Amino acid sequence: MSKIVVGMIGLGTVGQGVVRLISGCKNLVLKKVAVANLTKAREGQLPGSCQLTDDVSSLLNDPEIEILIEVMGGEKPALDYLLQAIEKRKHIITANKEVLAKHGPTLFEKARSKGVDIFFEAAVAGGLPLISTIHKGLEANEISSVVGIMNGTTNYILSQMTEKGIGFDVALADAQKQGFAEADPTADVDGHDVSYKLSILSALAYGRFAQPTSIYKESIRTLHFDDIKIAAELGYAIKLIGITKSKDGELDVLVAPMLVPKNHVLAAVSLSNNGILVNGSAVGEIVMVGPGAGQMPTASAIVGDTINLANAMQLPDFASYFQPEIETEWATVKEATTWRSPYYLRLIVNDTPGVIGHIGTIFGAHNISIRSLIQKDTKKDEASIVIVTHEVKKADMDQALSKLQKSDFLKELGAALHIFTPESNHA
Amino acid sequence: MSKIVVGMIGLGTVGQGVVRLISGCKNLVLKKVAVANLTKAREGQLPGSCQLTDDVSSLLNDPEIEILIEVMGGEKPALDYLLQAIEKRKHIITANKEVLAKHGPTLFEKARSKGVDIFFEAAVAGGLPLISTIHKGLEANEISSVVGIMNGTTNYILSQMTEKGIGFDVALADAQKQGFAEADPTADVDGHDVSYKLSILSALAYGRFAQPTSIYKESIRTLHFDDIKIAAELGYAIKLIGITKSKDGELDVLVAPMLVPKNHVLAAVSLSNNGILVNGSAVGEIVMVGPGAGQMPTASAIVGDTINLANAMQLPDFASYFQPEIETEWATVKEATTWRSPYYLRLIVNDTPGVIGHIGTIFGAHNISIRSLIQKDTKKDEASIVIVTHEVKKADMDQALSKLQKSDFLKELGAALHIFTPESNHA
Repeated sequence: MSKIVVGMIGLGTVGQGVVRLISGCKNLVLKKVAVANLTKAREGQLPGSCQLTDDVSSLLNDPEIEILIEVMGGEKPALDYLLQAIEKRKHIITANKEVLAKHGPTLFEKARSKGVDIFFEAAVAGGLPLISTIHKGLEANEISSVVGIMNGTTNYILSQMTEKGIGFDVALADAQKQGFAEADPTADVDGHDVSYKLSILSALAYGRFAQPTSIYKESIRTLHFDDIKIAAELGYAIKLIGITKSKDGELDVLVAPMLVPKNHVLAAVSLSNNGILVNGSAVGEIVMVGPGAGQMPTASAIVGDTINLANAMQLPDFASYFQPEIETEWATVKEATTWRSPYYLRLIVNDTPGVIGHIGTIFGAHNISIRSLIQKDTKKDEASIVIVTHEVKKADMDQALSKLQKSDFLKELGAALHIFTPESNHA
Repeated sequence: MSKIVVGMIGLGTVGQGVVRLISGCKNLVLKKVAVANLTKAREGQLPGSCQLTDDVSSLLNDPEIEILIEVMGGEKPALDYLLQAIEKRKHIITANKEVLAKHGPTLFEKARSKGVDIFFEAAVAGGLPLISTIHKGLEANEISSVVGIMNGTTNYILSQMTEKGIGFDVALADAQKQGFAEADPTADVDGHDVSYKLSILSALAYGRFAQPTSIYKESIRTLHFDDIKIAAELGYAIKLIGITKSKDGELDVLVAPMLVPKNHVLAAVSLSNNGILVNGSAVGEIVMVGPGAGQMPTASAIVGDTINLANAMQLPDFASYFQPEIETEWATVKEATTWRSPYYLRLIVNDTPGVIGHIGTIFGAHNISIRSLIQKDTKKDEASIVIVTHEVKKADMDQALSKLQKSDFLKELGAALHIFTPESNHA
């Protein structure tokens, strides 16, 4: 078998892991690595035959390089580099969920027209072979939903809040110190990262990318430790859940912190792990749990892709076999207002007679049926009311909450969180 | 894309599921199905173009048929049919773990020499795409272990014993009534089925099949409900665990009911689900949970294989790409006596002074260190002693138990079970 020549853009943590793993592959030669800053200190060494360069074009224009590994991340200039590489008929292996989610239709259309493949196992769920599972492993199934914990940073933060009884700010600072969260945690804690993954998963599962801007997101920033504690008493763990579901050609795609029943397998996914449920028409529900990020798990996915691609390149005309069928149109994503789920609510109210009656009246007017109501922690003139509802349409809940907030008895809306309702009673 | 012509041997529950799924695939034509008994009543209909025959050779000798799906099961005559089909250069898709485990080296060697592929996703963990995950998804990893719950029937029985507080015999009869267990449950409850799967997983993970006869097996037949109850009090669930671990070119391969810590993800795998942990050098530990058997999940794996194979057959010379590298020698499986794990023991003893001292002396002489000892349920002149040990070599425990059984104070060895010790603290 002849050797396949590989180039790489980016040499951060994941890139350095790729170098380590790829040096053990006898059929692959890493010829050039392009970086922004040649003088930055890096762990480990490049193989002697590999050139480090700050000139990306020397890599893109090198006809010997047949596979481009992109681990620089971010939207730009990664997009331009990828488009140029595809133009030069290089196959792409990328961990860059942002550029795929925002420009997937363009990238895949161009790849098809040039007869090259884009492999992206590392872009979703790090080391978990989720992409190949959906793409090849469940080939005989119509996928109806992909749901789960898709961000290791926020799962780490929520695990720490739960276990140590600390608030969000402390847990975030701790995660930053441990290297589990970035200095700017926006992409993780506000759900953008999960929305990119949901866009990519929608493309694989249903054939069309979901525009990240069309995906409804709730942050975990405003989560109180109180609610983690009360949820635990009620038999739930709070997790940041991403959902993409298909029905009649339209998608529900959203990311929000949700209450997950403690006996559900997702409740047991702790620290920086990911846990993903895939529902297929024939197989039913399958679950994958494992490291969703980290240097070597992500490098494992990238180098696994590279080996599979390099092996396949020995076959003539293989590109179409590996390219998932993804359309160039964006998916139709429904307004989140139509999304239905039970809610967990915590209201701080004036402790005056008739308050519960008022709440009941407002909820009744908006088709909200209460499953349980507990009055807790009554302070002087103040009560905390925890309500669990039956399934309700988000638009109805939004209107009811807006009315409550205009009422004279509500002092504070402590929390309004979705409750995750598993489709199947797995595990 | 031209149509690929498929033949199938067997039309039981799984075969009927395959017919249902395959009829939705426009690139596949099911031409012939061979069965032992033409007149048996079957659910659903064959497509009009498909011939039902009791003459297997008419199928094996049909040059139009390029893919043979084998869902008849059992060692013989399936082995002969598969060898004949390979001789005729037909690709094989099989759910038959027994024939693969017992004759894997022969089958794969012949397939290689004839340039055909054997796909077998359905043979292990039913609908879970475990085979493709190990074969392709973790290509960049050295696999060090594959461990978990690999038999849905026994997991269903153990779940029912735990939840309903019933004994093995009642739970088995119930599982038989529900269709989760066969009339002759030997293959499932005595660990043979799991040993076949471990043989196949060893081939995929480490390159060599493990002879099923070389795999140590403990049955769940002798499991008492008492031990399930006591284990639960101690924080464990009892599960039938299959293990194949590689170290220095030798394998530990065994199947036994084990105590699994309740906070471990395997403890949450209930009813007829399977749950498998794979440890890879780069990725760490990943977990897959889902339906390990059943009509449509198994058919999903078979038809998924068929679609992938049919697509790949459009490429010239693809067979070597898909064939896992499996050697023709059997793996070296270590004697189970060298296996190390903590133990759970329940001893019924005469309630006379000094008994605990005697036990301690015998254990000490065999390098067994006690972690906890609880005396329970003392009846007249009789005590039940539950012991949890630190890790101990099986040979040492076997000798100590044999000495105990010769002592005058032991009335009954109630239980001696392994405790599962996760390699990583997953979930």
